[in-house]
Amino acid sequence: MSVNSFGHLMRLTTWGESHGPAIGCVVDGCPPGIALDAEHIQRFLDLRRPGTGKNVSPRQELDQVRILSGVYEGRTTGTPIALMIDNFDARSGDYPADAPYRPGHADYAYDAKYGLRDPRGGGRASARETAMRVAAGAVARLVIPEVTIEARVVEIGGEQDAGRWDALLDEARGAGDSLGAIVECVASGVPVGWGAPIYAKLDAELAAAAMGINAVKGVEIGDGFGAARLKGSENADAMRAGARFESNHGGGIAGGISTGQPIVLRLAFKPTSSIRIPVPSIDAAGNEVDAVTKGRHDPCVGIRGAPVVEAMMALVLADHKLLHRGQCG
Amino acid sequence: MSVNSFGHLMRLTTWGESHGPAIGCVVDGCPPGIALDAEHIQRFLDLRRPGTGKNVSPRQELDQVRILSGVYEGRTTGTPIALMIDNFDARSGDYPADAPYRPGHADYAYDAKYGLRDPRGGGRASARETAMRVAAGAVARLVIPEVTIEARVVEIGGEQDAGRWDALLDEARGAGDSLGAIVECVASGVPVGWGAPIYAKLDAELAAAAMGINAVKGVEIGDGFGAARLKGSENADAMRAGARFESNHGGGIAGGISTGQPIVLRLAFKPTSSIRIPVPSIDAAGNEVDAVTKGRHDPCVGIRGAPVVEAMMALVLADHKLLHRGQCG
Amino acid sequence: MSVNSFGHLMRLTTWGESHGPAIGCVVDGCPPGIALDAEHIQRFLDLRRPGTGKNVSPRQELDQVRILSGVYEGRTTGTPIALMIDNFDARSGDYPADAPYRPGHADYAYDAKYGLRDPRGGGRASARETAMRVAAGAVARLVIPEVTIEARVVEIGGEQDAGRWDALLDEARGAGDSLGAIVECVASGVPVGWGAPIYAKLDAELAAAAMGINAVKGVEIGDGFGAARLKGSENADAMRAGARFESNHGGGIAGGISTGQPIVLRLAFKPTSSIRIPVPSIDAAGNEVDAVTKGRHDPCVGIRGAPVVEAMMALVLADHKLLHRGQCG
Amino acid sequence: MSVNSFGHLMRLTTWGESHGPAIGCVVDGCPPGIALDAEHIQRFLDLRRPGTGKNVSPRQELDQVRILSGVYEGRTTGTPIALMIDNFDARSGDYPADAPYRPGHADYAYDAKYGLRDPRGGGRASARETAMRVAAGAVARLVIPEVTIEARVVEIGGEQDAGRWDALLDEARGAGDSLGAIVECVASGVPVGWGAPIYAKLDAELAAAAMGINAVKGVEIGDGFGAARLKGSENADAMRAGARFESNHGGGIAGGISTGQPIVLRLAFKPTSSIRIPVPSIDAAGNEVDAVTKGRHDPCVGIRGAPVVEAMMALVLADHKLLHRGQCG
Repeated sequence: MSVNSFGHLMRLTTWGESHGPAIGCVVDGCPPGIALDAEHIQRFLDLRRPGTGKNVSPRQELDQVRILSGVYEGRTTGTPIALMIDNFDARSGDYPADAPYRPGHADYAYDAKYGLRDPRGGGRASARETAMRVAAGAVARLVIPEVTIEARVVEIGGEQDAGRWDALLDEARGAGDSLGAIVECVASGVPVGWGAPIYAKLDAELAAAAMGINAVKGVEIGDGFGAARLKGSENADAMRAGARFESNHGGGIAGGISTGQPIVLRLAFKPTSSIRIPVPSIDAAGNEVDAVTKGRHDPCVGIRGAPVVEAMMALVLADHKLLHRGQCG
Repeated sequence: MSVNSFGHLMRLTTWGESHGPAIGCVVDGCPPGIALDAEHIQRFLDLRRPGTGKNVSPRQELDQVRILSGVYEGRTTGTPIALMIDNFDARSGDYPADAPYRPGHADYAYDAKYGLRDPRGGGRASARETAMRVAAGAVARLVIPEVTIEARVVEIGGEQDAGRWDALLDEARGAGDSLGAIVECVASGVPVGWGAPIYAKLDAELAAAAMGINAVKGVEIGDGFGAARLKGSENADAMRAGARFESNHGGGIAGGISTGQPIVLRLAFKPTSSIRIPVPSIDAAGNEVDAVTKGRHDPCVGIRGAPVVEAMMALVLADHKLLHRGQCG
Repeated sequence: MSVNSFGHLMRLTTWGESHGPAIGCVVDGCPPGIALDAEHIQRFLDLRRPGTGKNVSPRQELDQVRILSGVYEGRTTGTPIALMIDNFDARSGDYPADAPYRPGHADYAYDAKYGLRDPRGGGRASARETAMRVAAGAVARLVIPEVTIEARVVEIGGEQDAGRWDALLDEARGAGDSLGAIVECVASGVPVGWGAPIYAKLDAELAAAAMGINAVKGVEIGDGFGAARLKGSENADAMRAGARFESNHGGGIAGGISTGQPIVLRLAFKPTSSIRIPVPSIDAAGNEVDAVTKGRHDPCVGIRGAPVVEAMMALVLADHKLLHRGQCG
Repeated sequence: MSVNSFGHLMRLTTWGESHGPAIGCVVDGCPPGIALDAEHIQRFLDLRRPGTGKNVSPRQELDQVRILSGVYEGRTTGTPIALMIDNFDARSGDYPADAPYRPGHADYAYDAKYGLRDPRGGGRASARETAMRVAAGAVARLVIPEVTIEARVVEIGGEQDAGRWDALLDEARGAGDSLGAIVECVASGVPVGWGAPIYAKLDAELAAAAMGINAVKGVEIGDGFGAARLKGSENADAMRAGARFESNHGGGIAGGISTGQPIVLRLAFKPTSSIRIPVPSIDAAGNEVDAVTKGRHDPCVGIRGAPVVEAMMALVLADHKLLHRGQCG
């Protein structure tokens, strides 16, 4: 039971703090013989990288990934793939140890749980950890070449019209505030039969994957909460000859198992908790103090969340491809 | 990796098909010395039992649970607790093997995955399995006496006014149709510090627990999707002296760890897939046929879902109480 | 982390006490479509059954196994297979709660760990639990039809000449004493490539499987301790064209992975701890009292151990067949 | 199911090849607040380090460990502890890809399993991986300060008189041959009650830990194979008032649970497989060729095995301390 691991047969373990010397991960269980180089992984990391626009954190990180094991002469060997990214732009000074607990952050809960924590940039709780998910997800994609995964922001600050997002974000940034977002991820090409009944339902695995992403507070498969407002006759995905479905309210999963339709996952990202507007809080000594974030942060963490969602989708599907092959041949 | 198991230190494994001779479960890892008898478990099972009203399945089951191991002279011994319920009112005849795949059900996906399936009453995919979750949840509650868990239906068929639900359900039943529902579950008394960072975040564990329940297609923690429409300044849960929070948008969890506030979980149940209105489908041979459900089913599966949600909440919290004690003493 | 479960993809969970109402198990992860009936399992149980000879416990148990789930129309469905055996000849009176801790038994350690225990016939610690391993092993054999598994006693009371065993056992029984034994298990037909490096080495998995059997205190793979007394040049298993090996000092495993040679496992069973000769001990209150076993027991537990060893070998190999297929296709 | 991970609550995952850029590990689940620095770990690594004497491999490695995460201001934070050692003296040229399969090594089995392998110095199968176990074991020791662990070689080449070992080793080295060894490890101070029944018996966990060490082919707890030659009356560990035992045939474990006595584990290391004496073998193309090792290796791998055995003992005990605390408080 490693709380920093994810997956069953294809298993990711991550380590590292936001402002420690490096972050990294181990991907165990990858099938052998797959062509893999750092450039492939880097392409996905670059999509998530901070410092690349006004709406994402100005932290400057090259996020240059190195493959330290598990690959020989350009192919995976079936042994653990260790990936590492050095941290360069660590600014520990931004995070004094006696700072107020930042509301919405893990600060208070970590201190209460562990009796101490690494306060530098959120330490282990920082979204920086998600870089390793993106890296591992890039490996997972190679295990499921039959699948295409695409995530995109579909709503920012309650607004679905993308043409208005820029103005909303400018406004929030100017006010020292932040906005939530909704991200939708679709996986096409998943064959019928992946997943499992009961506790390893594909829905359950994806929900855990999604809710394990920083700032995510809601998950839907297919019509999700909308399905709760439909009648059974409206929600039914009729089938026709050739196992062709006439709709996809179920989001590509029935009984926990893929149906061959696109898998549709939707996630709610809360607004970034780090804001410049003061919020009443307390410090570790229990004194009432205002929390005001001075570090560098994303005005809408959901924007950078999309590549992370894709990565988690890839990890779940690669894992279940192997699980299905293991049990059912 | 048992796909029919749930939890880490306090671990539930269930077995059984809807119309097989019995269903059962094993609860491993329960602390020793806890007073436990079948009556305690039965009380919770009775809340979930079918055949108890017009809005739940008319299937007649006593759901009489027996404790087969793990308890000696009225106390848990720390060894596996085996629970079993005999199936009485099994009507295999309602489910011919050559029936059409029922849209929204696991029929097609199971057949495609396993090459065969037990069609009797949905077999393993039947919601009957959830009786064992309720039974195990009753055990889990005893591990966390400091916590109070209550789930209730908050919306049926898109309607939040409970006074109108009866009419809606009558109408749906009359039309051979079904309705979705939203269930909210609140756990009070959870101390600060349970849960874990990253992949075993309490949010992630609860999301997996929730999405593993039959018919659930959406999960929210705290404000959930609503949080995605708030500004950071609105969503912040301010703190005051004595670690008192002024709001609970986060649903009692920050950074994956409990904050000491009530934990708030909300689930979307799709409308029951089994309806009397014909839906175009195919049979195992690929022929186009209409699916019409004749068996006995709930017009709104969400109603009986509430006790199951409570049980899963109890299992997650009991497990994390033990995990926290294991690591942090 | 269920301490009463074994295996990864093909996973066994057992429950039940020696003198409770029943014992049982759940086998999860079995591939679908395999022909399975209770008679097949019963054949293996009958080989292990007590009450069948003077050298095994006179306890009278039919050990009639029932399949409660996971099989439909004679074939496995891929869902959990629940097996159960009712206990008939339970004699709780033989085991008063205030009995002395029996040296070599789990009595003292259980009480110290859990603060209480089920004293009836050793409760959970009884070798009766191994009946379920034999049952599950019978299922596992069907997953690996290419493999033949045979275990046999090769030494009793330090004597390798089987012709002398009867006399030794008569003598020990007459004296109220017991004898140890060594069991050797050979699995033929295992293809090259099953197993895994490092912590899931086939040697490690088999060692855990073996040492988890009651009364086993030593395990060897291939030449085992004998290999520690050979030179490297003597211990080398030379290979010739066609991947033919000229010897099998390694016991069919190299680097944790099967080589295609027979897998050879040897286990040391300590003498049955329950003897009629008084042994100084204490009771739960700490009083010095002599422990004298009056219940029914095997004079040499190793004799009935052989079918259990075969079962554990089958479970490990079936599991690793699935794991190999999962990762390597 | 990560085949490169070990443990349950305190969980080690290792990565890296013998002649890759580095080796490393992640230790997850360590309790927070424990004083830890690299110097502490380094002390144990130095005991295992190659290049330190004529009887161990002349490979020159500083084995300088770095802590990359999980420690803040000298204390563990409860988050994953990542450790890394750079490889300096990697000589890939010693290991041409078309070399014969070295008998007793993983070469043939890896190629057959994965279809390819990293041949440099044994790649993942090299004993170099055990450096990370020693490093992780150093962390684990801090979790169990009440326990003292000491392993020592008790037999080399079948000889128990340590005064003769030097001559035996000189002789073997001179002849290009190698010797096996037996290592005994004793853990004192383990309280009664750690461990678990059935499949997580402390014996089973230690056996898996031991058999997962390179070159180990036999494991004994307490009297081990010797117990199989004792009578029950001889093997009984009598108890006297104060829970004092009069002997320790059981090796400190009964029913899978510690008894409070010293835990005694004995391991058989086969002779180093890499020898200068030619052994008939084949190459990847199936041609018959002699395998002659030219690389740098230990004449008796068991000598450097002792620190690894201590580390695995520490990991098992630390893990079970946490597991016990989790379930039993």
